Amino acid sequence: MAIWEKNKALQEILYAELPRLAREEGMEHEQVFACLDSGTMVLLGNPAHPKLQALLIGQPARIKVNANLGTSPLNNCPQTEMEKVAAALAAGTDTIMDLSTAGDLDAIRKQMLEHCPLPVGTVPIYAVGKILIDSERDIAEMKEDELFDEIDKQCRQGVDFITVHCGLSKRGAELALEEKRVLGIVSRGGSMLARWMVENNKENPLLSDFDRLLDIVKPYNVTLSLGDGLRPGAGADAGDAAQWEEVINLGQLAKYAHKRGVQCMIEGPGHMPLNLVQGQIEGIKRLTNHAPLYVLGPLVCDTTPGYDHISGAIGGAIAVSSGADFLCYLTPAEHLTLPDLEDVRAGVMASRVAAQAGEIALGRARALKKEAAMNRARKNLDWENMAKVAIDPELLQKRRQTHKNEEVCAMCGKFCSVKMLRDVKVKKK
Amino acid sequence: MAIWEKNKALQEILYAELPRLAREEGMEHEQVFACLDSGTMVLLGNPAHPKLQALLIGQPARIKVNANLGTSPLNNCPQTEMEKVAAALAAGTDTIMDLSTAGDLDAIRKQMLEHCPLPVGTVPIYAVGKILIDSERDIAEMKEDELFDEIDKQCRQGVDFITVHCGLSKRGAELALEEKRVLGIVSRGGSMLARWMVENNKENPLLSDFDRLLDIVKPYNVTLSLGDGLRPGAGADAGDAAQWEEVINLGQLAKYAHKRGVQCMIEGPGHMPLNLVQGQIEGIKRLTNHAPLYVLGPLVCDTTPGYDHISGAIGGAIAVSSGADFLCYLTPAEHLTLPDLEDVRAGVMASRVAAQAGEIALGRARALKKEAAMNRARKNLDWENMAKVAIDPELLQKRRQTHKNEEVCAMCGKFCSVKMLRDVKVKKK
Repeated sequence: MAIWEKNKALQEILYAELPRLAREEGMEHEQVFACLDSGTMVLLGNPAHPKLQALLIGQPARIKVNANLGTSPLNNCPQTEMEKVAAALAAGTDTIMDLSTAGDLDAIRKQMLEHCPLPVGTVPIYAVGKILIDSERDIAEMKEDELFDEIDKQCRQGVDFITVHCGLSKRGAELALEEKRVLGIVSRGGSMLARWMVENNKENPLLSDFDRLLDIVKPYNVTLSLGDGLRPGAGADAGDAAQWEEVINLGQLAKYAHKRGVQCMIEGPGHMPLNLVQGQIEGIKRLTNHAPLYVLGPLVCDTTPGYDHISGAIGGAIAVSSGADFLCYLTPAEHLTLPDLEDVRAGVMASRVAAQAGEIALGRARALKKEAAMNRARKNLDWENMAKVAIDPELLQKRRQTHKNEEVCAMCGKFCSVKMLRDVKVKKK
Repeated sequence: MAIWEKNKALQEILYAELPRLAREEGMEHEQVFACLDSGTMVLLGNPAHPKLQALLIGQPARIKVNANLGTSPLNNCPQTEMEKVAAALAAGTDTIMDLSTAGDLDAIRKQMLEHCPLPVGTVPIYAVGKILIDSERDIAEMKEDELFDEIDKQCRQGVDFITVHCGLSKRGAELALEEKRVLGIVSRGGSMLARWMVENNKENPLLSDFDRLLDIVKPYNVTLSLGDGLRPGAGADAGDAAQWEEVINLGQLAKYAHKRGVQCMIEGPGHMPLNLVQGQIEGIKRLTNHAPLYVLGPLVCDTTPGYDHISGAIGGAIAVSSGADFLCYLTPAEHLTLPDLEDVRAGVMASRVAAQAGEIALGRARALKKEAAMNRARKNLDWENMAKVAIDPELLQKRRQTHKNEEVCAMCGKFCSVKMLRDVKVKKK
């Protein structure tokens, strides 16, 4: 029985959107079916999300980019967050995650879903944690039902994918805390669950009661983004026992969920030196049966606040060339503050650069076609066609503004190497 | 006979600056001597450059970063270029190259040398080409003496290193032109020499008369930056016969020059897919006897004008982790226009991110120490110490400005994962 036969919401979206999706991804219908059924690709789309364009993620679909948005206690303006949705869409993001932790979270989430025709993701534990943290109570007081009820509500609201740290076992949390990691647990959801487990001496309910979670999300085809609560928060922590303990769990959970008709992605690291990226990506892919891998960075430097979009693009490009499917952006604001509109644009563009670089390395036809078109245009000093295939046509035009009537660029002017050799013919020997 | 015994200008600088250089690089004096004598490291410094701080480049010295500055025919304001010198210095560049092609080149060069206490490099053929191009004459009319005389003059002016495309043979140029490369020859100096050779049916004078060049530069310890005139200008051109023909020549020339007491660096690519970077760097290092390798990028995407500093940082980080020694920056203006002050800063910072990422991957002690200090500070939410080791302390402070009195950052606020687990103790079993 194929996965869409077990999941009627998925079937509904799939049958309705398949022709467009297959065309956009340059895939045969049969191949889309095969990849979804093997779990190496997911179709993001909750029928309850109005005006949604469903999206395929996973090899060999185009590499996708996510933008994290949302309010924070020190930066709480829902209107600004809606402007950021527009900025992220304009910059070419493929999905948005609403990570709001301040204000009326239900209202913000509903507004994001209305304003965003692309898949929207959330981290439901933030909403549960917010109530406790706002009233200065300990996260350890969280009731299991509160978490599952919040997830249920968000599925009904139309959220397309949710980060759930199901693989974060009590054993994993203890490993991370006892091993004297340089930076312990840096995932916000992960740190909440770890505190809950250790203080209550109980297993993670998202793990021990995984079936309950599957029952909640399946009617809405909400894809589980199995969170990496123990991702390394410092390069020196990458690849430790706690991290791999969680990856093993994620692989087992993804396999089980898929059998039950629920789609899963795997969330990946995190901070790590660039020489570890390929091995980590290949290792995670292997342990998770090649489920779509959604990486945050990886961030190859810890000392680059203000430039983490670049550190993340370095790691992201290598990750894509090693098999990652989905890049979560990092903005210049990472580790410092909430991103502003300019940061959102910079973050999406940096991730798109990484995705393009990775796809070129993979020899993906669509990426190579764009490169070839750019180079033909460059050879002809054809600025109109350069703009058409450039990653940011608007920026190209803007930077050309002061010399837009020139055939050459203002860096070389009449010293243009293309012009220098245009009429040169090698003499026959 | 050691290289500094053959080169008295080198000896003068070396003996005067060795204690500072060895201390800054964390190397023993003996190791500096050994690396210089094997040609795997160079000491940039022309005694005629006033107030110069000499600089070591090559393994295992710290990876260095260069900023290209200078006027162009469409953007000719010497005063602005001097402001860019200040911007590049403030951003932490290690060297500057004056690539001016418009205005009074001698005056600009002298001013750059006065304003820049770091090594300054040039591409002397630009100055010769400018006279011909400005008077609408063909570069093929260039007299060999004019080129050598210009080099001699610039050495006397105090330039510390010069790009000379000595390895660009007539055979190489013909290979590049006949092979129907996607983008032919994109090096400006390379394209001038190629035109000169093909039109005159003569060999490159910098190659056929290499001894004359060595005689000119040696008295000033001007380091030859052996230019890659045939570097790929499109990812699809990377690794072709023309490129390797030149690399072979560069290796032979560097070996010969070193024997004659002249220091050399090798210039490297260029545009290439990221999966080719490691192999190219290792191949070039092997063919050039591990002389210091100075790379432009490599640029792993052709379609990212406006974001080429990021494409270049991706390639640069991988290049450093594969053995490259010296990164020439790319700015957001690359392929579009001359960089402005903001571009200069962005370019230097992006290259510094790449250098740091590469050094971490190489396990360099200095880089790891910084990372460790950052992570200790993060664990303690100690923003003062974070700023001290951050790549751009000023930017960190600026982004913290609106919430500088908070213990946490404005992204997470009271949802801070570090605070969440601060007092959690794993219970003994």
